[in-house]
Amino acid sequence: MIELRRHNAAFCGPCFLHYTRQQVRKAIDEFEMFSPGDRVLVAVSGGKDSLGLWDILLDLGYQADGLYLGLGIGEYSDSSGSYARAFAASRDARLIEIDLPADYGYDIPTGSLAARRAPCSACGLSKRHLFNKAALDGGYDAVATGHNLDDEAAVLFGNVLRWNTDYLGRQLPVLPGEQGFVRKVKPLVRLDEREMAAYCVVRGIDYIVEECPMAEGNRHLGYKEALNAVEERSPGAKAAFYSEFLSKASPLFRPLAVASRDGGLQACIRCGSPTTGEVCAFCSLAERAVALGPTRRAAAGGS
Amino acid sequence: MIELRRHNAAFCGPCFLHYTRQQVRKAIDEFEMFSPGDRVLVAVSGGKDSLGLWDILLDLGYQADGLYLGLGIGEYSDSSGSYARAFAASRDARLIEIDLPADYGYDIPTGSLAARRAPCSACGLSKRHLFNKAALDGGYDAVATGHNLDDEAAVLFGNVLRWNTDYLGRQLPVLPGEQGFVRKVKPLVRLDEREMAAYCVVRGIDYIVEECPMAEGNRHLGYKEALNAVEERSPGAKAAFYSEFLSKASPLFRPLAVASRDGGLQACIRCGSPTTGEVCAFCSLAERAVALGPTRRAAAGGS
Repeated sequence: MIELRRHNAAFCGPCFLHYTRQQVRKAIDEFEMFSPGDRVLVAVSGGKDSLGLWDILLDLGYQADGLYLGLGIGEYSDSSGSYARAFAASRDARLIEIDLPADYGYDIPTGSLAARRAPCSACGLSKRHLFNKAALDGGYDAVATGHNLDDEAAVLFGNVLRWNTDYLGRQLPVLPGEQGFVRKVKPLVRLDEREMAAYCVVRGIDYIVEECPMAEGNRHLGYKEALNAVEERSPGAKAAFYSEFLSKASPLFRPLAVASRDGGLQACIRCGSPTTGEVCAFCSLAERAVALGPTRRAAAGGS
Repeated sequence: MIELRRHNAAFCGPCFLHYTRQQVRKAIDEFEMFSPGDRVLVAVSGGKDSLGLWDILLDLGYQADGLYLGLGIGEYSDSSGSYARAFAASRDARLIEIDLPADYGYDIPTGSLAARRAPCSACGLSKRHLFNKAALDGGYDAVATGHNLDDEAAVLFGNVLRWNTDYLGRQLPVLPGEQGFVRKVKPLVRLDEREMAAYCVVRGIDYIVEECPMAEGNRHLGYKEALNAVEERSPGAKAAFYSEFLSKASPLFRPLAVASRDGGLQACIRCGSPTTGEVCAFCSLAERAVALGPTRRAAAGGS
């Protein structure tokens, strides 16, 4: 039996799989993420969330391909890539692969040195750019990421702690496609980490269990812990925090986010991506990271 | 030396006292809480915050009297009353006393049984009513409470977790006096719990250290713990959470709170206090609590 305290429910294996798929179906319908005919590109890390999401979308009958981005984070990347490939083979599904060191000449350890910011910052920037590019190049209607309820609640908590009204206005389960940006959707917002881990176990999906070694001790994990302590006392608190935000507070912040974006976008002179400057943030990061060279990369622990 | 990580500072005793008074002075000025000529009634529990606040207001030259409300919570109430009286005597200040069991015929343990809600709910309701009444009867310009930064941040966190837009619109360091409500002010919003404890130690003020036994394990304390875990990793996060709320988010929620209050108030047919119904919530609670009688009171652990 799989017990879900926040729903005051317990499920056997088959009922739990039904419940999980229903939650994804509900999220897709409620937020109008995509339609049955759409081609969806799933950003796959090799972890429980992205592999579970891909599996569910395939079972629900969607045209879902996978995209794996090799980040060059030593053994962690080697191992996560193997899980992604093994899953794709087991489902006979299409997996697109991009390798940051081979295709763009830098890895995340070097990228974060070049950016002089936390590793997760350079990593997020690279992912957003390359997911978007791959989706546009491949003619996909949407990129789906495996952000689950815990992820979204932790991001929300971080934005609320600083009352970052701009980010609060943009934190939605669907970002519409516009001006060179493909639509981005998060179909797992109704499911939490424990549920996704249980889903993979029940379905027999092998995934990389380790957290990314570069994320250790970051703020995001601290926010998750704080919210877990609240959830422990009041089951359901985390889900209410996120869903009530969407229904009651998000509409108040949205106009502020739209206003702050009205700067006007133009094409990056290097890659053509939409940007507010001449060169987009990705091209600028890549240039600096490549300039650091392979010696610095080795010193930073890259492969 | 008293180290304050969030300010990246350390103070000797006299400098710390100066810092503490300055923080109270800043809060009073910034939020226009009251003027030098105003008569202020300090709600005194016998704890570090309310006694520290009273002490600071007297030192800053304000006309501040104390109000002690005996809640009938066994030894806790006996002891907290003694601390309040001893402090008043040491400063030769005026302390008004109201005793809930003697003057109104019920205590908080019985009141919470009658209300069939958490003890802190019946207690808060009783306090709000009696503080307001005492201030109006005594012709005071404002009631000052010892809510500190940790208290306000925890209340804010609770309101944000449920996105209670109505409460969020009303959570301010000053509630203006209107329609039978005296002005309520919180001059300690720039100081945290640890600072108030240090203030009392440096000043040699004896206070009741125990938390109220009826508050044990309540949600509010859980919110404080969660925020403390965040503060531990990022000193200053709690103060930013509260102050950025006031400057950036509160204005968005305020119109909603005003709209929800536009029901119109009338005088309670029992006591004359403003209420939306015929009988105010306090008179209704007191009636039910008195009806439970002394036997039930004893069984509930009341004195």
